[in-house]
Amino acid sequence: MMKVGAMQLGVAPPANRGIAILDFVLRIIAIVGTLAGAIAMATTNQTLPFFAQFVRFRAKFNDLPSLAFFVVASSIVSAYLILSLPLSVLHMVKANAVNSRVLLLFLDTATMGLLMAGSSAAAAIVLLAHDGNNKVNWFAICQQYNSFCKRVSGSLIGSYAGVVVLILLILLSGVSLSRR
Amino acid sequence: MMKVGAMQLGVAPPANRGIAILDFVLRIIAIVGTLAGAIAMATTNQTLPFFAQFVRFRAKFNDLPSLAFFVVASSIVSAYLILSLPLSVLHMVKANAVNSRVLLLFLDTATMGLLMAGSSAAAAIVLLAHDGNNKVNWFAICQQYNSFCKRVSGSLIGSYAGVVVLILLILLSGVSLSRR
Repeated sequence: MMKVGAMQLGVAPPANRGIAILDFVLRIIAIVGTLAGAIAMATTNQTLPFFAQFVRFRAKFNDLPSLAFFVVASSIVSAYLILSLPLSVLHMVKANAVNSRVLLLFLDTATMGLLMAGSSAAAAIVLLAHDGNNKVNWFAICQQYNSFCKRVSGSLIGSYAGVVVLILLILLSGVSLSRR
Repeated sequence: MMKVGAMQLGVAPPANRGIAILDFVLRIIAIVGTLAGAIAMATTNQTLPFFAQFVRFRAKFNDLPSLAFFVVASSIVSAYLILSLPLSVLHMVKANAVNSRVLLLFLDTATMGLLMAGSSAAAAIVLLAHDGNNKVNWFAICQQYNSFCKRVSGSLIGSYAGVVVLILLILLSGVSLSRR
């Protein structure tokens, strides 16, 4: 009875405290990846040194709606992850908190979906920019905008890393809910 | 002591049995949406009745890699959801199962990510097919391939419905893990 009473008062079992610390570290990694991706994409632009018919002089992320969506989605996800840090700290102290863990599980899931949507929409456009599609006469633009394409492709790595970390965070929430 | 013994033998508390039944029903809905989306996309093709330079006569989903990825991703997700039904039934009978619930939570999360990736990549390409992009000279193709575009856009609805249902399933897993 004493043991049950202690757990109800919020004394953390060691396993769940370890999970809470890992949760915090993974959130920091996800913030770095997502924010780096958003900033890299948002600050990319390339001005062409030569004139060419049908080709614009300057390429920027907001010329392509899917890349603009990527920047908005990554920014929202970064902001959410930063705001979720206090709750993650709370779980280190109060390791058998239930409702806040379920809330975080739900928000993490929705956030992962948003980040995946932004990354995949951008990836589809980046693929098209690299390869073009001769069936529907969409030309590859990466020959012209080479450094633009390289940087845009690189910024996807950060956000896909963020997706993987968010999936791990959801798994951790499930494990810690199951271990109370 | 008798009550604890009965629960350890697998007699379900009523709340978790209700959640397990809802889980099963939601899975059926997700299968219908995802499979309908995959089939609608895979069977779409439009043959143009007139000749036009630079325009191909026949449009099919596998002319565009992102739409092909959508079909593959939706098929994998449908297959997974069908295979997950026995586990969902098991949870109705054995409502305090823990490990299988955490496993299902993880697989549901990965599956939701895959479905979201496929849907969003396809959505980015469908948006481009509708609007085109005059900055990089990608022309809208939906004027020519009107019925193709309509059906492809429609098939996205089914798979986005599947994404929403999968997020609800993940939330339900979290709630039932917290209620043991």
